[in-house]
Amino acid sequence: MKKRKFSSREEKTISELRQDMVSGEWVVIATGRAKRPHDFLKQARARARDPIAACPFEKLIPNRVLVYSKDKKKGDGDWWLQVIPNKYPAFGKGVCAVFYKEGPYQWTGGVGFHEIVITRDHARSIGMMSQEETEFVIRAFQERYLALKDDRCVEYVSIFHNNGRMSGATITHPHSQIIAIPVVPPDIRRSVDGSRRFFRVNRACVHCMILRYERRVKKRLIFENERFVVIAPYASKTAFETRIFPKFHSAHFEDMTARDRILLADALRTTLAKLFRGLNDPDYNFFLHTAPVRNVKDTDHYHWHFEIIPKTAIWAGFEIGTGIEISVISPERAAEFLRKVKVR
Amino acid sequence: MKKRKFSSREEKTISELRQDMVSGEWVVIATGRAKRPHDFLKQARARARDPIAACPFEKLIPNRVLVYSKDKKKGDGDWWLQVIPNKYPAFGKGVCAVFYKEGPYQWTGGVGFHEIVITRDHARSIGMMSQEETEFVIRAFQERYLALKDDRCVEYVSIFHNNGRMSGATITHPHSQIIAIPVVPPDIRRSVDGSRRFFRVNRACVHCMILRYERRVKKRLIFENERFVVIAPYASKTAFETRIFPKFHSAHFEDMTARDRILLADALRTTLAKLFRGLNDPDYNFFLHTAPVRNVKDTDHYHWHFEIIPKTAIWAGFEIGTGIEISVISPERAAEFLRKVKVR
Repeated sequence: MKKRKFSSREEKTISELRQDMVSGEWVVIATGRAKRPHDFLKQARARARDPIAACPFEKLIPNRVLVYSKDKKKGDGDWWLQVIPNKYPAFGKGVCAVFYKEGPYQWTGGVGFHEIVITRDHARSIGMMSQEETEFVIRAFQERYLALKDDRCVEYVSIFHNNGRMSGATITHPHSQIIAIPVVPPDIRRSVDGSRRFFRVNRACVHCMILRYERRVKKRLIFENERFVVIAPYASKTAFETRIFPKFHSAHFEDMTARDRILLADALRTTLAKLFRGLNDPDYNFFLHTAPVRNVKDTDHYHWHFEIIPKTAIWAGFEIGTGIEISVISPERAAEFLRKVKVR
Repeated sequence: MKKRKFSSREEKTISELRQDMVSGEWVVIATGRAKRPHDFLKQARARARDPIAACPFEKLIPNRVLVYSKDKKKGDGDWWLQVIPNKYPAFGKGVCAVFYKEGPYQWTGGVGFHEIVITRDHARSIGMMSQEETEFVIRAFQERYLALKDDRCVEYVSIFHNNGRMSGATITHPHSQIIAIPVVPPDIRRSVDGSRRFFRVNRACVHCMILRYERRVKKRLIFENERFVVIAPYASKTAFETRIFPKFHSAHFEDMTARDRILLADALRTTLAKLFRGLNDPDYNFFLHTAPVRNVKDTDHYHWHFEIIPKTAIWAGFEIGTGIEISVISPERAAEFLRKVKVR
C-alpha cells in the first residue's frame, strides 16, 4: 500500500476511521459494508413483556424516596412515577475514600446509591409518552441528582435507561436507573480531560464549537427546539447513535431550569419516538454525561448531554480487544433517515 | 455515609471497586449480588450450527494467503487450516497516513488488512482440538502477523476469535480474524502507557510483577506449564475472564519460538477446554494484546498476552455510559472453579 502525506479526497477506501475530537478515540464507519437504514428495522413483532401480575414495579414501594402524581389532590395512590432503592444494588452503604491493598493491587468499597425510576404504565416506554410525562422523568432525574450529589462519598452520578432484553434490561416494565459512585468513571474522565485540553488551547467549549458547526452544515442534525439540539455524532460508535445537547453552554445537568426541563422532555421524547417509529421499537440504552460532582469550577468547560445508543450490533472480539467500534451505517444517512420520521 | 481515610478490612460493602493497575480503569466486583459458578452454566443444549451445505468455510478458497495440511505429502486438498482475505472487510486498500478534515473533525482511510483463519472441522472449536491442531492456529497467527506488520500502513495487528452468536460470530464454523489497522487502538495505547509509567518508576515490567505475585498467592491461578500461566485477573471485567501470559518477559507476540508455540497451544486449548466443560460450551471472545508494530524498542517494557472473555453478561447503560463493568462473580471463585475442571 502507498503511504502519502497529502491526498485529494476522491481516494476511495472501504471504510473511514473517524476520531472523536473530545475523547480522542477512533471509530470505523464501514462504508464498504454499508447497510441501508431499512436493514436496521426490527422484524415486526410485539415487544415481549413480563406478565403484569408478576411485575415488581406495579405497586407503590413502601421505601420509595420520591413519588409524583399527575393530580396532587388524589395523593400517592394515584402515583405516576416513583423512585425506589434497587433491591439488588451494585453500590450501597459503607466507608468510602479508603483504599485497601492486596499485594500490588488496590481496591475500595463499592459505596454509593443505586435507585430505580419507575413510571406507572407497564408497557409504555418514553418514546410513547407525552411531553408532560417525559418531563416527570427528567424532573425525577434532576431531583435525585441534587439529593445524591451532596453525599460526601459520591464522586459521580450516572443516570441511564435500558430498554429491552438486548440492552441489558432484566425487567421489562419501563424504568431508569441512578447510580452514585465513589470514583470518577474512566469514560467521563477522558471526556472531561479532552474538553479541558481544548479549552486551554482555544478558550472555548469544544461541544459548543461542534454544535455551531453541526447546526450550520445540518447533515447530521435530527431535531432542534429553542433550547436543545439532537445530532448523530460525527464519530458515531454505533448505527443510529444520537446525542441531545443543550444549545446553551452548561457543564452541570442539575443546573437545568424548569423551562429547560420541558424542552429537554420535548427533545428526548421526540428522539425516542423517532427511533420507536423509524426502527420499529428497537432495544436501546440512553445515559447522561455530565461533569463530576466535585470541583465544579474546574469543569465549567464541560458540556452535559444525553447519549442514546440503539442496540444494533454486538461487541465482538475486535471491539472488546481494541476499543474501536465498527458502525455499518454513516451518521449522515442515519440522521437523514431519523430527520424524516414523523412523530406527533 | 461515613468518610474515613483509614479502616480495617472487616468493613462490609456490597461490592468492591478494583483498579486495573496497568490501564488505571475500575471494575466492580459485585459480591453483594454474587452468583455461584453453577449459575453461569449454560442450559444444556447443543450449540446451534449453520447447515454444513451452506457453509462458506468448507472449501479451500482460491485466493487464500496461507494453507496448512497435517500431512504435507497429501497437499493442499488435505488442508487443515487456511487463511483467506475477508470477503466483507472492515479495512482494505487505499492511501494511509493522510488525515482529512471535515470542519473541526479529522478522519483517515480505513486502510489495512482483514483476514480469516479457518480450521477444517465445521463443528470443533479450539476447546475440542488437540494440542497439535491448536499449534497450527497459533502458527498461522504468528506467520500472518509477521507478514502484515511490515506493511508501511500498519500500526497495529489485532488477532481475535468470536465463538457463538452472542459473541458476535455471524458464521458458526470456527474461525479467527486478523485485522491490521493504520492507528494504534485506544485500549492498547492505554495499556502500553500504563506499562511505560510503571517501568519508568520501578525499572520493571508491571505484568512480570503481577505474575510473580499471582503465582505466589495462587488464588487466581487457573493453569500453568513450563512457559505460560493462566490467571483470572484481579480486576476482571467479566465473570470467568481469563488471561494467558508468557512467564518470560516479552513485549512482542511475533518473537515466539517454535517451542513457545507448542506450550501456548497447551495453555490456550486447556483453558478453552476448561470453559467448554466447566460452563457447558459458552460463547466467548478471545484476543491478543501485544505491542504496536512500530518503535519496538520503545515498547520493550510491555508484556503480550491473550484475554478470553466468556459472554456471560450484556453491556447495559451503566457500562456503556461509564466504562465501568460490573462482574457478579469474584475472579477468586471463578479461578477456583476452573482450576478444578478436569480436561484431557
